[in-house]
Amino acid sequence: MQDDMGIVLTELEAALGTRGILTGPDACAGYAADQSGLVLGTPGVVLRPADTAETSVAVKICAAHGLPIIPQGGRTGLSGGGCALPGSVVLNCERMTGIEEIDLGAMTMTVHAGTPLQVVQEAAREQGLDYPVDIGARGSATIGGTIATNAGGVRVLRHGMTRQNVLGLEAVLPDGSIMCRLGKTIKDNSGLDLKQLFIGSEGIFGIITRAVLQLRPMTPGYSTALLGLRNHEAALKCLALARSHFKDALAAFEGMWPDYWDHVCQHGLARSPFHERHGFYLLIEAACDQPQDTVQMEGFFEAAHEAGLVQDGVLAQSLAEAQALWQIREVVGEVDASFGPHVNFDIGIAPSQLGGFCDAVDQSLKDLPFPASTLKVGHIGDGNVHLLVACADRDEAKARIETMVYDLLRGYSGTITAEHGIGRVKAPWLTYCRTPVEIALMQRFKESLDPKLIMNPGALIFK
Amino acid sequence: MQDDMGIVLTELEAALGTRGILTGPDACAGYAADQSGLVLGTPGVVLRPADTAETSVAVKICAAHGLPIIPQGGRTGLSGGGCALPGSVVLNCERMTGIEEIDLGAMTMTVHAGTPLQVVQEAAREQGLDYPVDIGARGSATIGGTIATNAGGVRVLRHGMTRQNVLGLEAVLPDGSIMCRLGKTIKDNSGLDLKQLFIGSEGIFGIITRAVLQLRPMTPGYSTALLGLRNHEAALKCLALARSHFKDALAAFEGMWPDYWDHVCQHGLARSPFHERHGFYLLIEAACDQPQDTVQMEGFFEAAHEAGLVQDGVLAQSLAEAQALWQIREVVGEVDASFGPHVNFDIGIAPSQLGGFCDAVDQSLKDLPFPASTLKVGHIGDGNVHLLVACADRDEAKARIETMVYDLLRGYSGTITAEHGIGRVKAPWLTYCRTPVEIALMQRFKESLDPKLIMNPGALIFK
Repeated sequence: MQDDMGIVLTELEAALGTRGILTGPDACAGYAADQSGLVLGTPGVVLRPADTAETSVAVKICAAHGLPIIPQGGRTGLSGGGCALPGSVVLNCERMTGIEEIDLGAMTMTVHAGTPLQVVQEAAREQGLDYPVDIGARGSATIGGTIATNAGGVRVLRHGMTRQNVLGLEAVLPDGSIMCRLGKTIKDNSGLDLKQLFIGSEGIFGIITRAVLQLRPMTPGYSTALLGLRNHEAALKCLALARSHFKDALAAFEGMWPDYWDHVCQHGLARSPFHERHGFYLLIEAACDQPQDTVQMEGFFEAAHEAGLVQDGVLAQSLAEAQALWQIREVVGEVDASFGPHVNFDIGIAPSQLGGFCDAVDQSLKDLPFPASTLKVGHIGDGNVHLLVACADRDEAKARIETMVYDLLRGYSGTITAEHGIGRVKAPWLTYCRTPVEIALMQRFKESLDPKLIMNPGALIFK
Repeated sequence: MQDDMGIVLTELEAALGTRGILTGPDACAGYAADQSGLVLGTPGVVLRPADTAETSVAVKICAAHGLPIIPQGGRTGLSGGGCALPGSVVLNCERMTGIEEIDLGAMTMTVHAGTPLQVVQEAAREQGLDYPVDIGARGSATIGGTIATNAGGVRVLRHGMTRQNVLGLEAVLPDGSIMCRLGKTIKDNSGLDLKQLFIGSEGIFGIITRAVLQLRPMTPGYSTALLGLRNHEAALKCLALARSHFKDALAAFEGMWPDYWDHVCQHGLARSPFHERHGFYLLIEAACDQPQDTVQMEGFFEAAHEAGLVQDGVLAQSLAEAQALWQIREVVGEVDASFGPHVNFDIGIAPSQLGGFCDAVDQSLKDLPFPASTLKVGHIGDGNVHLLVACADRDEAKARIETMVYDLLRGYSGTITAEHGIGRVKAPWLTYCRTPVEIALMQRFKESLDPKLIMNPGALIFK
């Protein structure tokens, strides 16, 4: 094996140059894990091809020697899909950066996969356009990574997931061949839309190398409001009202349960603008024609108030005020220290069932032989709740909570992950939301496209 | 074979009942062809299962006997994907109709595949919502058919193709097993999004039986204008202006070249509201908060006029006036008799290249040894032009024109079909816009999912 590896490394170095390949624990340590908390080990080799052609050659060399590859973007994933296995070969896209073209007529951007999301967003804005996919990790997350994981975020309600914003794709397949279709139109019915299979595939079908992104007209401004309500049911009624009021302009509809609200306020992570406690909190944002134009939002607020849906509300009068309101929602990333050891869930179900599901979870947790409190916050307009359940840091407690929550979920036709993906962390739970027929299909496609099973083994479907 | 067929029919009749199976040329003649003009022969048997379970049993029986199946919706396709082969087994979804549920919280409709598109649209409207996919054949086209062909239409600019409006799907696979995922959220990253492979698959992977559709808030009204311009380049500049002016509200951006305009006016199919001829004609529609609210459109018209882009224009002041303007665009379906024998194209390329491509086609046609005139009309905001080339009704002329147009298209990274699909009519041309790697992938998926090749043989990828 040592000799074999020596031959492989010589071939890879000849193909990629010295800048294109890292070996040894010191150089490779930084490529071990993503943001999921899962750490399996340090890779033995990190490949850093400069372009599609080099990626293709590198994959061909690995395939010829039967060497598994872990594809990596910015390592900001939350499910361990980009986690290296000990001694494994990581292929990182960090050198494949840059914007190839912005086509103003087609409103598209052709971009290399390693380009950070934020660079794409800023380049679009310079042209008076917008790339609407937005996540907290925008500075590090790569376009290729957001496509491979079908990234969501807080603006899904208006412009969809990453899937809805990709027009063309280039990928290197597990045999090193290059699938290239960099079309610039949403209309293309010339046979199977193969890119759809790569979007959200978490690297199991190959390595995304370039993409054509659909840009949108820039939104001049947003109007932002925070509401205190009686309960989740009132929030649901507000959702219907907001949709009929704002229509396509409704951009965010974020919900916070009192457990979450109380926690972040009591631990000084955010400050409540309300004097009283409420049974549910809503953050609503709508696109408008002027920065912080509040006319439409005031109309909505009045209608919601007349319908008896709202107990209290704050309307941002400036960008700074809007950011302060968002702060309460966005500190969810900072609760780890104050909340202690916990299990993270990323549940998705029909919005109308979200309240009932969360109540059922809280009820079931009481039956556990140990205390388990929750924080609940989410993109409730999309039916997506991020549920955090505190538990002692024991594997048994964690497994019991996961089994309990996912068992409950089965009755709701929901998904165990709305946006974070399966990766390696949730792979054991896939059967809780996908049928045997579906899983067999996934495995058949995997075997068909990657018969040697060298692409991201262990991610998404175990293979 | 006769005996075998007798056994199969007995099994099928036992499974589907007498209403569920038609035999004999008289009963089956009406199920022979779609709207493509392609007629291959009358099916030997037409299966009409009442639901998913019956569809599953019927497919299992056919699979056990190695009998190919032609899946059929409303037979409104334009590429022969639903055309029966002589003596073949057709499986028609016409008895699987009905709306199962409208979920107002999720803004979704769960519907059986044989339900006509128009029934879905009307049921959505009754709830103050909208299903935005709209095509001329709405009265006959079934939801299953629109999904299997990823139907487009005139509102793609705003709400995308059918693909962008489907959340959940149930399908019977070539082995009769049922893939069911009727989720109601756009956010679901629990492994591969398998429905994407069925959307636009033209029946080669199985039979769609149910779907969850994403409804939208109803649009209160549209503002419609018809503009006369100097040329396609001016139309492109208008597109950029319209996008920055209307943003997400831009709902239709349809272009008509003078050859089309002159033809429909001279043959009495429509009446020009302009006194003079123009180098290009644009039909623009934008969603607005009031029926036929013209304020925004007037603002756009002024801006376009100031920029020297518009020579003349008409703004609809009522729904009747808007419909009259649309008439000029929509009579494209009626030009067959007056234009004579012709070849139909459904080209898609980057919007900015559409004008150059059409000029190149006109130029190349002059080199042919026979006269060949064009009509050009299309969804130019999406980069989709419907190009009609008149030619004597001889196969040789048709083949020469097709070769010439598709050869030209190769230089534009375009698609030979933006919305009509490949079916049987365009299958021989697939290599003109998809690479060998892509076609090999499609064939691999087909073999993986349908190893006996019994689902819609001959459609999309020859197999």
